[in-house]
Amino acid sequence: MTTVGFIGLGAMGRPMAANLAAEHEVYVHNRTASVATEHAAAHGTTAVDLAGLAPVEVVITCLPTTAEVLEVADELVDHLADGTRWVDCTSGDPAASVALADRLAEDGITYLDAPVSGGTDGARQGTLTMMVGGPAEVIEELDHVLDRLAERIVHVGDVGAGHAVKAVNNTLLAANLWAVGEGLVTLARSGVDVGRALQVVNHSSGRSFASEVLVPQRVLTREFPATFGLGLLAKDTRLGRDLVSASGARAPVLRLVTELFQVAADELGDDVDHTAALRLIERWADTELS
Amino acid sequence: MTTVGFIGLGAMGRPMAANLAAEHEVYVHNRTASVATEHAAAHGTTAVDLAGLAPVEVVITCLPTTAEVLEVADELVDHLADGTRWVDCTSGDPAASVALADRLAEDGITYLDAPVSGGTDGARQGTLTMMVGGPAEVIEELDHVLDRLAERIVHVGDVGAGHAVKAVNNTLLAANLWAVGEGLVTLARSGVDVGRALQVVNHSSGRSFASEVLVPQRVLTREFPATFGLGLLAKDTRLGRDLVSASGARAPVLRLVTELFQVAADELGDDVDHTAALRLIERWADTELS
Amino acid sequence: MTTVGFIGLGAMGRPMAANLAAEHEVYVHNRTASVATEHAAAHGTTAVDLAGLAPVEVVITCLPTTAEVLEVADELVDHLADGTRWVDCTSGDPAASVALADRLAEDGITYLDAPVSGGTDGARQGTLTMMVGGPAEVIEELDHVLDRLAERIVHVGDVGAGHAVKAVNNTLLAANLWAVGEGLVTLARSGVDVGRALQVVNHSSGRSFASEVLVPQRVLTREFPATFGLGLLAKDTRLGRDLVSASGARAPVLRLVTELFQVAADELGDDVDHTAALRLIERWADTELS
Amino acid sequence: MTTVGFIGLGAMGRPMAANLAAEHEVYVHNRTASVATEHAAAHGTTAVDLAGLAPVEVVITCLPTTAEVLEVADELVDHLADGTRWVDCTSGDPAASVALADRLAEDGITYLDAPVSGGTDGARQGTLTMMVGGPAEVIEELDHVLDRLAERIVHVGDVGAGHAVKAVNNTLLAANLWAVGEGLVTLARSGVDVGRALQVVNHSSGRSFASEVLVPQRVLTREFPATFGLGLLAKDTRLGRDLVSASGARAPVLRLVTELFQVAADELGDDVDHTAALRLIERWADTELS
Repeated sequence: MTTVGFIGLGAMGRPMAANLAAEHEVYVHNRTASVATEHAAAHGTTAVDLAGLAPVEVVITCLPTTAEVLEVADELVDHLADGTRWVDCTSGDPAASVALADRLAEDGITYLDAPVSGGTDGARQGTLTMMVGGPAEVIEELDHVLDRLAERIVHVGDVGAGHAVKAVNNTLLAANLWAVGEGLVTLARSGVDVGRALQVVNHSSGRSFASEVLVPQRVLTREFPATFGLGLLAKDTRLGRDLVSASGARAPVLRLVTELFQVAADELGDDVDHTAALRLIERWADTELS
Repeated sequence: MTTVGFIGLGAMGRPMAANLAAEHEVYVHNRTASVATEHAAAHGTTAVDLAGLAPVEVVITCLPTTAEVLEVADELVDHLADGTRWVDCTSGDPAASVALADRLAEDGITYLDAPVSGGTDGARQGTLTMMVGGPAEVIEELDHVLDRLAERIVHVGDVGAGHAVKAVNNTLLAANLWAVGEGLVTLARSGVDVGRALQVVNHSSGRSFASEVLVPQRVLTREFPATFGLGLLAKDTRLGRDLVSASGARAPVLRLVTELFQVAADELGDDVDHTAALRLIERWADTELS
Repeated sequence: MTTVGFIGLGAMGRPMAANLAAEHEVYVHNRTASVATEHAAAHGTTAVDLAGLAPVEVVITCLPTTAEVLEVADELVDHLADGTRWVDCTSGDPAASVALADRLAEDGITYLDAPVSGGTDGARQGTLTMMVGGPAEVIEELDHVLDRLAERIVHVGDVGAGHAVKAVNNTLLAANLWAVGEGLVTLARSGVDVGRALQVVNHSSGRSFASEVLVPQRVLTREFPATFGLGLLAKDTRLGRDLVSASGARAPVLRLVTELFQVAADELGDDVDHTAALRLIERWADTELS
Repeated sequence: MTTVGFIGLGAMGRPMAANLAAEHEVYVHNRTASVATEHAAAHGTTAVDLAGLAPVEVVITCLPTTAEVLEVADELVDHLADGTRWVDCTSGDPAASVALADRLAEDGITYLDAPVSGGTDGARQGTLTMMVGGPAEVIEELDHVLDRLAERIVHVGDVGAGHAVKAVNNTLLAANLWAVGEGLVTLARSGVDVGRALQVVNHSSGRSFASEVLVPQRVLTREFPATFGLGLLAKDTRLGRDLVSASGARAPVLRLVTELFQVAADELGDDVDHTAALRLIERWADTELS
């Protein structure tokens, strides 16, 4: 049993911390403290302020962006012992995380970037996929902690690589989602039955997670349940784009998609579900998918 | 048992006509006549010239583009009896097919556009998906013929709707494929293990048919087997784009992808596999995916 | 002196017909007949219905789109004598105009496409530039008519070439305008004085008609005077794009610009000035140019 | 008379330093020292190593990119006196220049970013336009130096603003140039006389510096004189794009143009003239502009 501090009890963090608590001693911290108190009551964790995380062996952060992780680090680093491991599950900024890892290393703290995918369902069921950047031996050492969070743990490279893969994955999600939106609106305006067209695509070479899962469950139902905000996906595409720039690759499609998601968030707001971006394509064509 | 004429014994047409012959009387025709003769010898079909198709109840065309279908129609239409059904499995042009249907109707011939997806494997195994545009009662009437070709037959709308869905599906394939190419080249240049990154994407929200099947089987293996030519996919994206224009939808992403596939075909040739388009992204970044 | 029929008394047509009347006998026609009556009273022209154009030697059309020209042609063609010349100053569709020219030729009428540029000021002052497609000898024969309308008459090719050049010119206008809008909004958000930046650009290599004339006179003044509607420019970019498609050229930038102008017209309406498209860039960045 | 050190005797720097020497005492430095020796012999300047610049009151840098400026600064800063002014005429990176200015300020050195436009002709004739970022009083104080270099000196904002305006100007140049290339290739393939079409555009609303000067002088002549390398313009578009990202503006067109210029430099090399980018559009369409 390991003593773990979990920071960030959002839609993902709450079930992840609860799963951890089944096997480990878990201290929880949240900006709005009452959320931590409720979590403690419900799941047998212990709510603390940042200073209260001093005794933990492993810190886990699960925050909206790297900006919040850096704020926490500024305050927390002086409280942590030499040898602490820091696992950052935020969908974060690769370059900023490399810099943070260097800074934490000066205090004897080893940082891993370990974002997850699988959504809130995966978080609850412990079936997330985790992509980890950092030293292989530390990842191995933490296996008994990480395997409470994720079903599949993939070591993708050095520090920053986890965030890079997550940024690219989510930019691909954005690209596939926007593309199928454009395609279906075109078909709808051409007099084609959209539901049947989608059935065909989903048995054919044009299919994607976006076409198989998101469009039928969230768009055609007109529900757009806000489990993953448009503003967060727009942010992830910016991280993907910045990675493209830093890498020197040419990526006209991912850049255009990034721009379109910024426009969608400008026009529709950050808080709607990410799939609501398709409402913009619908609006431009005066056509609703259903 | 129905008398069927099958025109176009390419990589898809050969196994499709062979499957038909298991239950129906099949006359085959091919521009290079020896291909038809060989088919007849191997599969019990009858090789004929176009005039020899006069007695058939159903004509099936499976040609590279609508241009070839129109050429065949010019020559064939005078030979066909009133009441003949014409099933066009070509990945064709929606607008031109509507015009052809009107012209054939004057001679009492009913035209269905019925492109298929599933590749050469699906054609052999009879597991294709067929998307059909035209009158519901004719599709039903031909069910005993169509079900020898495809496992799944979906009526998507009036004449032209089948081609429209196929064009959009293939444009989505192009979009998803190009996007994952850009993303993986970016990761490769960022020092990330591409194979592991792809494993993560394929368990996450960024996955697509392109990432799950095409990239691992055709790109990372460096095999690029030329079963579906880049020139044909480039043509399909042009059909998708023309449909966007005709529909009045806004589709900046599909238009950009279309343009990039034309450039890829310009630079790499029409005859390489469609997945070789990613070689262009690799070349621009001086980075090979493997 | 030649007898000329002038159809379409819009913002461009009114002063053009008035200039013609200084030297020729001009019959005018307009969908809203009162506009023609007023023109006759003010400029010594004669207001007629379409049938009243029978005696003219030269028909000039100056209409919003080729659709209106085709409507007029349907009704007018039976009234016109063999040997009539038809000069179409509409910013029209190249392909449709070639078809119209063929049809008119059957009745002995020679069609020239002759769109103009120079705006309402140029129309008033007779300083327009006219780009003409059609047979050189007919253009020469009509020189004494055309030179009342335009200061510069350029024969750019066969029928359709005039419309093609106009469509490309206006698509370049759209591209240059949108680009300078993106650039200036970027500078404004970077704390740079936009007026001074524009002064620099206009003495440097980034300058264009859009940066030298349109932005200072129409955008920075916040006047956006609606002399050339956004809907019409959006239409012209579609004509440019269709020409790209027909030509087989690759034009990712012009295609993206076309798409953005459609979106701008969707969001802002067809009737605002074409320069108001920059309001969309401003809105997306929450920044006003001034 | 002021003692000025001039670093970077490239195609722009040589004539600029020569003009300065007509009125001021000029020390020149160049990485390849022989270039400085020749300049001294020809123009009455004094060739020195970096340490030899210690006595100057004003340092001027005119280097390919900010990377070279930073290298020079590392070595030079210890030699310079408190109160030295540093005028950086490089087409540089806004953000990196702000950081450099802060660092130099610690040693009492005031940095201005002061890139120029007008090309080698303007440099020779002293008719450049200079866009300056930094404190107004320092710009005023240096007026007697700057006015030997440029005819027009525009103060566009704080440190970094000069580079920002230059980056945007050059990105607009790239956009306008690429757009007219796409447009003219389209017209050429449509059977239109390109020279006449360009004449029309240059009297119409689609005109730009690219269409009026670059295309007639460099492209249609097939000369592509390498006075401003494609690699440098590609770099400037990256600076423009990074400014867009930092600013939070949306700029899909400028981003696409940036990507296309990177591809052009990948395919054609950095050292060809920037106008040779149009060779790529020509190649894709198998059509030469002439």
